Amino acid sequence: MVEFTVENLSVEEVERLRGVFGPLTESVRELIDATIRTEVDADVVAVARAEIDAATARLRERQLPGPYGVRISDGDQMPWGNPVIGLRNPIAPPVVLHRADDGGVWCDFHLGAAFEGPPGHVHGGVSALILDHVLGEAASSAEHPRLTGTISLRYLRTTPLGDLHAEAGIVRTEGIKTYAVGHLADANGVTVEAEGVFITPKWAR
Amino acid sequence: MVEFTVENLSVEEVERLRGVFGPLTESVRELIDATIRTEVDADVVAVARAEIDAATARLRERQLPGPYGVRISDGDQMPWGNPVIGLRNPIAPPVVLHRADDGGVWCDFHLGAAFEGPPGHVHGGVSALILDHVLGEAASSAEHPRLTGTISLRYLRTTPLGDLHAEAGIVRTEGIKTYAVGHLADANGVTVEAEGVFITPKWAR
Repeated sequence: MVEFTVENLSVEEVERLRGVFGPLTESVRELIDATIRTEVDADVVAVARAEIDAATARLRERQLPGPYGVRISDGDQMPWGNPVIGLRNPIAPPVVLHRADDGGVWCDFHLGAAFEGPPGHVHGGVSALILDHVLGEAASSAEHPRLTGTISLRYLRTTPLGDLHAEAGIVRTEGIKTYAVGHLADANGVTVEAEGVFITPKWAR
Repeated sequence: MVEFTVENLSVEEVERLRGVFGPLTESVRELIDATIRTEVDADVVAVARAEIDAATARLRERQLPGPYGVRISDGDQMPWGNPVIGLRNPIAPPVVLHRADDGGVWCDFHLGAAFEGPPGHVHGGVSALILDHVLGEAASSAEHPRLTGTISLRYLRTTPLGDLHAEAGIVRTEGIKTYAVGHLADANGVTVEAEGVFITPKWAR
C-alpha cells in the first residue's frame, strides 16, 4: 500500500527545513565524490572514517523509524527522499525539473564520478533511472500521479560524464494509460531515447 | 573513447585496498541513510555537517583528477567506482553478483531509504538501474564486455523496499548482439521483468 504523509507545514517552515537539510545533503554529496576518488593512506582514511561515523551517530540521535516517504504540505509535495530529485537524498544528482509551456518537462544537470559505468561515461542504468523519473514526471501532475507500467530505452551511443540534459513529454492518454517519450543528451545531441507507458495507480483513480 | 586503466596490482595489494576502502564506503552508506532519516535540530545538523566537511577535506588531500574508471589487475577487473556494484561507491546498494552454473547471474540485496520512489517502495528507475546492470553482466564476460543497446522493463507491481532478488541470463547471441532477459523479485515473486540487447563495443571486437 502506497501512503503519502500529510504534514500541512507552512510555506515558511518548509523553507526553513530546506535551509537546514539542503546544505547537509550537499556536504554528503561532496563526501561521496571524495570517497570514490581519494588516494590518501590507510591512516588518513581511518581518521576520516571516525569523523563520518561520529556525524552518523549524531544524526541518528533522533530519526524516522523508516524511509522518508513523500510528504505533502499546503497541497505541495515534498519528495525529499527521492533518489533522482530528493533535497535530502545525497544519492540524487540532484535533478531539478522544469515544466515547459507545452506541459513537457526538462532538466539540465551534472553527473560526476558517482554515476560512472564504462570508464569516463555514464552507467547505462543511471541513464535509465533518470529517464524513468523524467518521463514519469512528464506523465504526471499533482492531481494525477502516474507510475511506470513499461519503459524502453535505446542507447544511441555512450553518454560522457559531465553536463547533460533530459526532457520528456506526453504523446497521448488513453484511460489509465499515459504514453510519454523523452531523451537524454549531451552537448553533441541525443545519447539515449526513451518511451514508456505510465499508469494511474488504483488508489488515485 | 572508453579506456580501462591497467594497474597490475598483486592479489595481496588488491586485498589490502579492499580492506582500507570497503569499510570507508560502508560508513558513508550509513551516513546517507542517516541524512535522509534524521530529525535532529538545526544546531546538531550544523555540527554533523562540520564533521562531514572535515572528512571530505581530509580525503581530498590526495585524489584522482577524475572519476575512478575501471582498473584491471592480474587479469581481474576492479569496477570499484560502479554505482551498482562498486566497492568504493557509497551510492551502490551494493549488489554482489554470483555466476550460476548455467552461466546466468543472480544477486540478493537490500534496498533502504535511499532508493525510495513511491512511499515505502523502490523507485521504478532504481529497478531499471539494477536490472540494466544485472542483464549487462549476464550478457558479458571478462573477455567479452557488452554494453546496453536497448532495454525494456515491465512493472508488474510496485516493489517494496527491503530484501530483494534479481537474476538474468542470455537467451541467444547473434554476431555483435546478445539478447538477455531477467527480473527483479521480492519474497512474493516477480515485480519487474526486463529484456535487453547488449552490444559488443567497437573497441572490444
